[in-house]
Amino acid sequence: MSAAAAHELVLGGARSGKSRYAQAQAAASGLAVTYIATAQALDAEMAARIERHRAERPAGWGLAEAPLALAAALEAHAAPGRCLLVDCLTLWLSNLLLADAAGARLAAETAALLDALPRLPGRLVLVSNEVGQGIVPDNALARRFRDEAGWLHQALAARCARVTLVVAGLPLSLKEPPR
Amino acid sequence: MSAAAAHELVLGGARSGKSRYAQAQAAASGLAVTYIATAQALDAEMAARIERHRAERPAGWGLAEAPLALAAALEAHAAPGRCLLVDCLTLWLSNLLLADAAGARLAAETAALLDALPRLPGRLVLVSNEVGQGIVPDNALARRFRDEAGWLHQALAARCARVTLVVAGLPLSLKEPPR
Amino acid sequence: MSAAAAHELVLGGARSGKSRYAQAQAAASGLAVTYIATAQALDAEMAARIERHRAERPAGWGLAEAPLALAAALEAHAAPGRCLLVDCLTLWLSNLLLADAAGARLAAETAALLDALPRLPGRLVLVSNEVGQGIVPDNALARRFRDEAGWLHQALAARCARVTLVVAGLPLSLKEPPR
Repeated sequence: MSAAAAHELVLGGARSGKSRYAQAQAAASGLAVTYIATAQALDAEMAARIERHRAERPAGWGLAEAPLALAAALEAHAAPGRCLLVDCLTLWLSNLLLADAAGARLAAETAALLDALPRLPGRLVLVSNEVGQGIVPDNALARRFRDEAGWLHQALAARCARVTLVVAGLPLSLKEPPR
Repeated sequence: MSAAAAHELVLGGARSGKSRYAQAQAAASGLAVTYIATAQALDAEMAARIERHRAERPAGWGLAEAPLALAAALEAHAAPGRCLLVDCLTLWLSNLLLADAAGARLAAETAALLDALPRLPGRLVLVSNEVGQGIVPDNALARRFRDEAGWLHQALAARCARVTLVVAGLPLSLKEPPR
Repeated sequence: MSAAAAHELVLGGARSGKSRYAQAQAAASGLAVTYIATAQALDAEMAARIERHRAERPAGWGLAEAPLALAAALEAHAAPGRCLLVDCLTLWLSNLLLADAAGARLAAETAALLDALPRLPGRLVLVSNEVGQGIVPDNALARRFRDEAGWLHQALAARCARVTLVVAGLPLSLKEPPR
């Protein structure tokens, strides 16, 4: 099995249970798990979400923070026999757009992620929000963000062996490895 | 078959055909049907929607209104040989948030619903809007509502034997009873 | 096989890969393809999208523009041995609502489309945006648009042999022709 055959993209709407599902996938892998957090506690609402997520994770998992330099964090922590759980990619995209509205940083980091993905040893579970099934947003930055998230999901889905959409806590398989 | 094995959660976006699908499920049950309406005609747009939905329902169905006290209404009307059709849970959540922004009423009513569900005799079809697959809303109340809807869907999906996502009038099964 | 048995509705969120999937379906038909564009380059953002889409299409495909009179365009171009690819219906709905806010034009054009559909020879691939799975929009026009899109999708799905939801570039079948 190639490295990429072990990677899974988990998509879902807000409060869809995607993080819980992804954590169950990581736990079920039987591998040592390192949680790669992309969130930044910039306000009280985010701080509360981060703390709630932290309390829900198994105590034995490692933790690394990667609000911007995700590919570098993955390359630093990936190892045979290890599962990296990234939660979530939409926050990472949002951080990159806020850090550099012109998008150069986002383009560079995204390219680095897509380049690194097939070479990473061990297992990778990537969590991201489905944000494209509502009405076109009024403001241009939100449309930009929605476009970037959609393109990223397509590119990642093509590079992962398994893609799952979580709705109401239930997994719907979009792509599975050939048997 | 336990009572819970007869319950179905029907999710779908706006104008997805979820109500029509749920009504067909209730009609196909062969049971006496009571429609549990959660809508309140607070403005002309809502009044028009309520009237349109009323005209589309079979004339022989019973009707009960439960804009807030849903668990009590279900316990009052549930009976062996009866199918209760609740349309819809997102309006009920919205009514609760508008009635008490602090959320105490919502927490109490939601707990009562989840508690009652496994004990209800007969059959239950619950309709709710999928609202979490768009861009993060600008205002905090909308984010709160979206979170509450997502958590409720997860909790209900875990307690129903059947969960269906309706897209363009077509049912996509997310959970089915074991054969 | 009746004409309608050859028609497919392709739904998907923003940047879901629905256009790419639909183009692959059209190319795989082995038929001559005419692309029916509904977009109007009213601003720079739209002009850029139109140009990007144009560059991605095979050079040999025909092109017709139908920002408003879609049924007439389909009847003019449909032929046995030809595949018409309409991208996309949500822009067409939006054009109709902008052209006539009262909705008479929209009602007439939608009725004409639904009427023409089963009679069209050859093959038809219709692309449309799923826009109903987010929070209820603040403004009335957006709610109106969302309702019209949902109703149209239901009506078209009932008239097409194949309905596909594209998520992250991956097709999820909602309806298939009987074998």
